[in-house]
Amino acid sequence: MNILSIVSFLMALSVLVVGLKLSTDDLRMFWDLPSAFIVLGGTVASTAISFKLDRIGVLFKIFFHRVIMGRKIDYKQIIIDLMKIADSYNKGESLEKHIDGVKDPFMKEALGLVNDDILDSEDLFELLDERVNNMHYTYMEDANKIKSVGKYPPAFGMMGTTIGMIVLLGNLGGADALKKMGPAMGVCLITTLYGVVISNMAVVPIAENLIDSSKELFVKNKIIIEGVKLLSKKTNQVVLAEKLNSYLQPSQRLDWKQVVGK
Amino acid sequence: MNILSIVSFLMALSVLVVGLKLSTDDLRMFWDLPSAFIVLGGTVASTAISFKLDRIGVLFKIFFHRVIMGRKIDYKQIIIDLMKIADSYNKGESLEKHIDGVKDPFMKEALGLVNDDILDSEDLFELLDERVNNMHYTYMEDANKIKSVGKYPPAFGMMGTTIGMIVLLGNLGGADALKKMGPAMGVCLITTLYGVVISNMAVVPIAENLIDSSKELFVKNKIIIEGVKLLSKKTNQVVLAEKLNSYLQPSQRLDWKQVVGK
Amino acid sequence: MNILSIVSFLMALSVLVVGLKLSTDDLRMFWDLPSAFIVLGGTVASTAISFKLDRIGVLFKIFFHRVIMGRKIDYKQIIIDLMKIADSYNKGESLEKHIDGVKDPFMKEALGLVNDDILDSEDLFELLDERVNNMHYTYMEDANKIKSVGKYPPAFGMMGTTIGMIVLLGNLGGADALKKMGPAMGVCLITTLYGVVISNMAVVPIAENLIDSSKELFVKNKIIIEGVKLLSKKTNQVVLAEKLNSYLQPSQRLDWKQVVGK
Amino acid sequence: MNILSIVSFLMALSVLVVGLKLSTDDLRMFWDLPSAFIVLGGTVASTAISFKLDRIGVLFKIFFHRVIMGRKIDYKQIIIDLMKIADSYNKGESLEKHIDGVKDPFMKEALGLVNDDILDSEDLFELLDERVNNMHYTYMEDANKIKSVGKYPPAFGMMGTTIGMIVLLGNLGGADALKKMGPAMGVCLITTLYGVVISNMAVVPIAENLIDSSKELFVKNKIIIEGVKLLSKKTNQVVLAEKLNSYLQPSQRLDWKQVVGK
Amino acid sequence: MNILSIVSFLMALSVLVVGLKLSTDDLRMFWDLPSAFIVLGGTVASTAISFKLDRIGVLFKIFFHRVIMGRKIDYKQIIIDLMKIADSYNKGESLEKHIDGVKDPFMKEALGLVNDDILDSEDLFELLDERVNNMHYTYMEDANKIKSVGKYPPAFGMMGTTIGMIVLLGNLGGADALKKMGPAMGVCLITTLYGVVISNMAVVPIAENLIDSSKELFVKNKIIIEGVKLLSKKTNQVVLAEKLNSYLQPSQRLDWKQVVGK
Repeated sequence: MNILSIVSFLMALSVLVVGLKLSTDDLRMFWDLPSAFIVLGGTVASTAISFKLDRIGVLFKIFFHRVIMGRKIDYKQIIIDLMKIADSYNKGESLEKHIDGVKDPFMKEALGLVNDDILDSEDLFELLDERVNNMHYTYMEDANKIKSVGKYPPAFGMMGTTIGMIVLLGNLGGADALKKMGPAMGVCLITTLYGVVISNMAVVPIAENLIDSSKELFVKNKIIIEGVKLLSKKTNQVVLAEKLNSYLQPSQRLDWKQVVGK
Repeated sequence: MNILSIVSFLMALSVLVVGLKLSTDDLRMFWDLPSAFIVLGGTVASTAISFKLDRIGVLFKIFFHRVIMGRKIDYKQIIIDLMKIADSYNKGESLEKHIDGVKDPFMKEALGLVNDDILDSEDLFELLDERVNNMHYTYMEDANKIKSVGKYPPAFGMMGTTIGMIVLLGNLGGADALKKMGPAMGVCLITTLYGVVISNMAVVPIAENLIDSSKELFVKNKIIIEGVKLLSKKTNQVVLAEKLNSYLQPSQRLDWKQVVGK
Repeated sequence: MNILSIVSFLMALSVLVVGLKLSTDDLRMFWDLPSAFIVLGGTVASTAISFKLDRIGVLFKIFFHRVIMGRKIDYKQIIIDLMKIADSYNKGESLEKHIDGVKDPFMKEALGLVNDDILDSEDLFELLDERVNNMHYTYMEDANKIKSVGKYPPAFGMMGTTIGMIVLLGNLGGADALKKMGPAMGVCLITTLYGVVISNMAVVPIAENLIDSSKELFVKNKIIIEGVKLLSKKTNQVVLAEKLNSYLQPSQRLDWKQVVGK
Repeated sequence: MNILSIVSFLMALSVLVVGLKLSTDDLRMFWDLPSAFIVLGGTVASTAISFKLDRIGVLFKIFFHRVIMGRKIDYKQIIIDLMKIADSYNKGESLEKHIDGVKDPFMKEALGLVNDDILDSEDLFELLDERVNNMHYTYMEDANKIKSVGKYPPAFGMMGTTIGMIVLLGNLGGADALKKMGPAMGVCLITTLYGVVISNMAVVPIAENLIDSSKELFVKNKIIIEGVKLLSKKTNQVVLAEKLNSYLQPSQRLDWKQVVGK
Repeated sequence: MNILSIVSFLMALSVLVVGLKLSTDDLRMFWDLPSAFIVLGGTVASTAISFKLDRIGVLFKIFFHRVIMGRKIDYKQIIIDLMKIADSYNKGESLEKHIDGVKDPFMKEALGLVNDDILDSEDLFELLDERVNNMHYTYMEDANKIKSVGKYPPAFGMMGTTIGMIVLLGNLGGADALKKMGPAMGVCLITTLYGVVISNMAVVPIAENLIDSSKELFVKNKIIIEGVKLLSKKTNQVVLAEKLNSYLQPSQRLDWKQVVGK
């Protein structure tokens, strides 16, 4: 489970609640069911027309699996794992006993395919490459769909405010009109508030998070493919570490001396 | 007929009606013919200048055929169909008897061309590839045209509100001016409302739907071309299924054991 | 002359006039010379800085020639013309007598170059390709320049309104201030109205029309190059029609049986 | 000196002054030093953070050299010059005596390098190509930097208006509050006016002008490279003119018959 | 330390303070803790959801190292250094004694790798190229992330103003309502001010600065790779200077006569 993401969401929620609390003691002032219905309902309906109704569930699942449950990628550990397996494989041990211990699903899949030895080496790495590219493309498409959904909540927020103003102004003209107008206008603005909050504290950041983690996942899988390729050629573990390090920034690189020295 | 799309449109309509109803009991308050004329008329006129008058009908036809009538693509069924035809073809049966039973028009066209055996294999698949690419390009162009139309309704909504305000303010100055001003301003805002609704509940979501389904259609046709190519080489049906599966996400893939086991 | 474009412009004008008329009987309320001067003058001046003063005339000429005078492209007729010429050419007749009857200027140019027989075939079609690409690039650049002009009218509309408000508010404070303020504010908004109308009913749709017709022209010229290339190789007219059909959508395609059967 | 650019700037200035004059006789109403300080100071400071302080001077120099001093490119004259030099060169005369008479600095550089005869032909034209591409890239980068500066004036205009409103509303509440409020609000709007004017009448049009002239310069230099290449191969002057014409639109092309006939 | 960047930030701060001071003598009017909390807290929380909480520290480090501490690149000095080392190397002296004196870390790394002579020449320069490209890609990604953060402060500024207006209007209706309303509305606008300032005076200019300096760094590293490549081939120092000059604009180029003449 991704503690940092959950902390971030709690942080966003706290900022909102404290921000509202600092403005007034009466938080019920910000709750209006019709407003929530217009903004959320409009967003869901327009999303359903845009991306087919049954995709909405999929988008929620993507969010849950990749933002809430997704773990931080530990590039160093991946290189260490590949180094150890390479060392053992070079000593003539089989890959099989290592496969069960591997935690990363893609590394498990890749090592399994090498161990099975059904496809010849070139075809195997071409197939892995294609799968990684295909997965990256689909993840980016999904993330960009969610990002494009981010324009609906402010639009429906504005729609709600416009509806409220039409009603309010239409009923004006009686006595005490100006006195009643203030609170009524306040209610009109609640949909605007909901639209801004939903878009900027949820939909857009989640989409950017997904775009960001898709790119990280892509780099991780490229490192694994390269690592397994080198491993299958019985490359020395130090050379393997050095070559995989070139995918990372200097500060992220693994100091293989600590691993080999152990 | 695409039930999900129709449900989505009904959902959008309900959200709108319920949202309006929650704001006031008098729904007639939101109906103003001059406002509808300005927003719709302006949008149609500007679209006619942008994309030639006779294209507007085409855009409506595209919407009807692809959003309302377009069926959800069942990738698994397509792979199953191709497996069955491949199996029968490998047993020496002719393709001809299968062609009639095929529902997908592009698969029918592709199988027909293979059966006719006029073009040599390389030319045939190059021709099919070109047709699919050409169709995808045209579909995407059409969808992006509709998307670019989405900027007109809010613009004409704003135009209508500005017109209303000019008239309203111009006539101010008499007695009871402030009293009359409220309802009149409310009417001004109706064009803004129409603009927001038309753009965000119809034009933009429809355009995004068309972009999305064009991409799906493209993948489907690519799978069919690859499948028919493999089939024409008398590839084993299981290998065919495995190879076509690589176009899909893990969760979408066909478990061919269930098909062969039957 | 392009009747449809003219009808579209008349439509836009009618929508505007009827829309204004529905709001008030006194259309003079929307006419204000200083406002028109600010919006139009500002747009012209900024366009002159952006694209050099002498280009403005060129932009008007492009608009006139391609939007007002440009004819709808009849793909079928082009293929029929090429088929007939091919048929006659294959029978050993010279190209010369057909050239005069050809209406499309680019087809005339291409056939003329083939007939002249100065350049060898490869050079000739490379030259034609380069000219078509070059022309397409320049047309798209011009259209995008016009599109980028579309941001100036709303900006100067806003500038005019701000100027008006500054003057109006600066003179406030005397007796009857609020009474006078209404009509004066109405006048301020007229520049906003002009900006929205000029941008959304003229500049932007014209630019999109030019982008659209540039793309159509490009496809037409590509078909002609391909057709003349096939024709110069003495290809059978039916094969020629079939091959050129592949550039078009199924519904646009020429049914060559009707042409040959005649 | 580029008369047309200067005329365009004077035009923009006149539109502004006349527009203001038409609104009120008292032009001092639009002058407010703190407003100018906020909008200009904010824009300069943010530009300094964005592109390093010492680059601001460079941006002004670019503007002065390329917009104010830059001459209109006379493609025909360049082709005529190249034709004459080619003619003389083909007759066995040396290039040297022509180089001094050449006005275009890049043509002078290119002819000088051919005359020096240090680099072999292939290296020489590769070097020239690289220089032209590199220069075009830098010019486009500079122009796009200026364009991105265009977003700051409206932002600081809005900032100034917000500051003014905060002060104005904060001091409200005393007697005569409403009477004083009008003129004070007018002053607030002056920063908005400055922001719109600076961005739309200066920064953005200048950036678009630079983008446009960078593209023209690029085509001119490409023509010169091609021309000098043909010339160094002792190509006939008419062939040279014909080939260089292909870079231009039909209406811009040089009718070489007039040149040769002289 | 980059004096110019620090001066730019001080300049931005002064513009802000002087701008505020010019508007009112009472600067405390612009300080409101809840407003700062909403704008800054919302921006930090949304950034944390977008890019993972632990990345925020990294973004600050990038800002500090590259904007505050980053030195101006002196292209001429780099070429002079490379010329001197090349001269000494061509005279048969070892590279080793020069490496310690080199200030640029990438030049040190490249010369060290040449001196170590482990990798063969082609592999070595391919490796250096890959590292430079990889670093440039990561730097641009980071800069674009910061740029995309720039949309949050105005959004939360608007959110804060909306919250304030809801509370304010909701409490309206009592006596003296209009009198109290002014100052309260002023406070509402403070969040808008904060949002505009943070985005336009800090986040966006910093992001553009990082994009700009990433591009400069990339050119510098490309020059070093090319220089070290030429140096390792024992190229003459004047030829080396001439070739490296081609990466620079004419005005930036090194006049090697001054260096050699010394």
